Amino acid sequence: MFSVIKTDNKARLGEFSCSHGVAKTPVFMNVGTQAAIKGGLSAEDLKKLGCQIELSNTYHLHIRPGDEIIKKLGGLHKFMSWDGPILTDSGGFQIFSLAKLRSITEEGVSFNSHVDGRSIFMGPEQSMQIQANLGSDIAMAFDECIKIPAEYSYVKDSCDRTYRWLLRCKDSQSKLASEKDAVNPVQQLFGINQGGIYTDLRIEHMKKIAELDLPGYAIGGLAVGETATQMYDTIETVIEYMPTEKPRYLMGVGTPGNIIEAVSRGVDFFDCVMPARNGRHGHLFTNEGIINIKNKKYEMDNSPISKECNCPVCKSHSRAYIRHLFKAKEALALRLAVMHNLWFYNNLMEQIRLAISENRFDEFKKENSLKLDKRI
Amino acid sequence: MFSVIKTDNKARLGEFSCSHGVAKTPVFMNVGTQAAIKGGLSAEDLKKLGCQIELSNTYHLHIRPGDEIIKKLGGLHKFMSWDGPILTDSGGFQIFSLAKLRSITEEGVSFNSHVDGRSIFMGPEQSMQIQANLGSDIAMAFDECIKIPAEYSYVKDSCDRTYRWLLRCKDSQSKLASEKDAVNPVQQLFGINQGGIYTDLRIEHMKKIAELDLPGYAIGGLAVGETATQMYDTIETVIEYMPTEKPRYLMGVGTPGNIIEAVSRGVDFFDCVMPARNGRHGHLFTNEGIINIKNKKYEMDNSPISKECNCPVCKSHSRAYIRHLFKAKEALALRLAVMHNLWFYNNLMEQIRLAISENRFDEFKKENSLKLDKRI
Repeated sequence: MFSVIKTDNKARLGEFSCSHGVAKTPVFMNVGTQAAIKGGLSAEDLKKLGCQIELSNTYHLHIRPGDEIIKKLGGLHKFMSWDGPILTDSGGFQIFSLAKLRSITEEGVSFNSHVDGRSIFMGPEQSMQIQANLGSDIAMAFDECIKIPAEYSYVKDSCDRTYRWLLRCKDSQSKLASEKDAVNPVQQLFGINQGGIYTDLRIEHMKKIAELDLPGYAIGGLAVGETATQMYDTIETVIEYMPTEKPRYLMGVGTPGNIIEAVSRGVDFFDCVMPARNGRHGHLFTNEGIINIKNKKYEMDNSPISKECNCPVCKSHSRAYIRHLFKAKEALALRLAVMHNLWFYNNLMEQIRLAISENRFDEFKKENSLKLDKRI
Repeated sequence: MFSVIKTDNKARLGEFSCSHGVAKTPVFMNVGTQAAIKGGLSAEDLKKLGCQIELSNTYHLHIRPGDEIIKKLGGLHKFMSWDGPILTDSGGFQIFSLAKLRSITEEGVSFNSHVDGRSIFMGPEQSMQIQANLGSDIAMAFDECIKIPAEYSYVKDSCDRTYRWLLRCKDSQSKLASEKDAVNPVQQLFGINQGGIYTDLRIEHMKKIAELDLPGYAIGGLAVGETATQMYDTIETVIEYMPTEKPRYLMGVGTPGNIIEAVSRGVDFFDCVMPARNGRHGHLFTNEGIINIKNKKYEMDNSPISKECNCPVCKSHSRAYIRHLFKAKEALALRLAVMHNLWFYNNLMEQIRLAISENRFDEFKKENSLKLDKRI
């Protein structure tokens, strides 16, 4: 269930609801790839960081510990002790980026696991089965995530196949959700738009999947090699063909600036590994830009990462202490850095929502979209 | 300040106080070597785990980030955001186990840092200066920690020198604490008994240091190669010569069974890296013995690490989940394991105190001292 509460130009304030709760949009989903947040954060930490939706990966959980095991243990919510909304991706992106690909056919994809080399086949039905076993609130359609650049003819054929896969996903997902022992009988399926940077393919594909009246739609295959301008142009073009009453999810994006730009074009959902990954490298987000906490200049700095920040890390710890933890290779360094960055992203979304609700999102965008991405 | 509230045979129930709070004894001090707990735990986590005294390492903090920096930042309590009691060791143990030793003279010890090879000299005055800069509540005397086995004549000479070093520590520490800008003007100095497993040397040394009327006394140089029986015999012998009205600290010991045995001989303070280190290897303490959470048999086990445990980990997470985190190499695995083990140790001490207060410590010891150390 989704409803748009208010708009400010193209930016939308909304509410997404599912059986595990309500998320205010625009929302940033916090990534827990293997049913855990990188850096040693627990589900309890996520709550404290203002996380509204957790995102886990079908591919990783299928390989380890196995989705059937998670189902037997009561589903992913219970397994990882997170009682809020969960979105699972389809496995597609990881198959095409992490695994050793063997073949793509009409049926699906054959590949070798990046963990143990084991041969695995995944098609729409398998992806839906795994996501049903996990019991996520939002299941993503199984698609081919095409690298950019790619030939027009390849992208066209791939989009057509991804559309046929979506029809099978829809069938399969609704059957699985209605089974007696379904972990999550009210799981919602989101379709994914593809088409690389070819405007006509994007539009044609989006029009076709919009007709299926799915609970939500994502823009996939971006942030995979194109320029920022190409990304924004693609969003701007394709969003015109996305149903206005359904949530719009821009997959795997991005920097604070990317998110602000995408919100201004009408996007509601985001996810990205960036805050956690950058955090683990000591790159910390602040309202003034990105600092590198390992820098010598923070050695004697008793102030928090950001003076304006109300996160649990900034309330208790100094830049000098966190720098020391990085230098001393203490695991706590990574945890504090990831906590701060995830809080920053979740709080950024709150500021975005506030700006939309007060009809000053354009002003907010002008002030922040470049500044927040700057390394200082 | 220390007072014995009650005894049960030789086991003692007591209270240690300092300007940062009161600790009920017998107490297990939680080790935060580099001003952080291994596994990504913060000072806030320590509070939740029932930690009463945190222990940090003079050697490590002198090398990184530097004790003068910590002093300028307001002292170790502020630096690591821990407002409870802190004990700092003298650096001696690490110099003799971690660093590349160059020479021991009457003045002190020359060695090379294990981090960057830098040449460092540390004697009683330097150790006291570093601990004054850190501002710990308890400073440990600078001593030579002798490996076992060692020649009688070497141990005798070393003990004599350690005694002379103690006199210099006492002088130096009291001067530093009375300086106008002292971080902790009420720091307490504990002396350390040495003597290997030579009973006469242990007794002679203990008698001499007892005369100095220090705020507390430690038994050092154990758990470094001797058998458990030799360790217990040494404790039993030397404890007769330790002042009854002062806290008795057995350094670097040990397993739950070791601790119970030592409490039954009159020891009040403990510290050990074992709960954190074992945790990081997946070895988790329970009331039935030690389990290896990586074992295949826990793959589908929805129960907590220990059904009787009230720690934050056992309240929220299953064996199956923690096993998955270890297998998937997630940092959260280490954090949850260390949290559980530290809580187990802190709770063990609470059970010990309860048993003493109810005059049933012997019974408690019989029931637990072998069982808790057993791998199951």
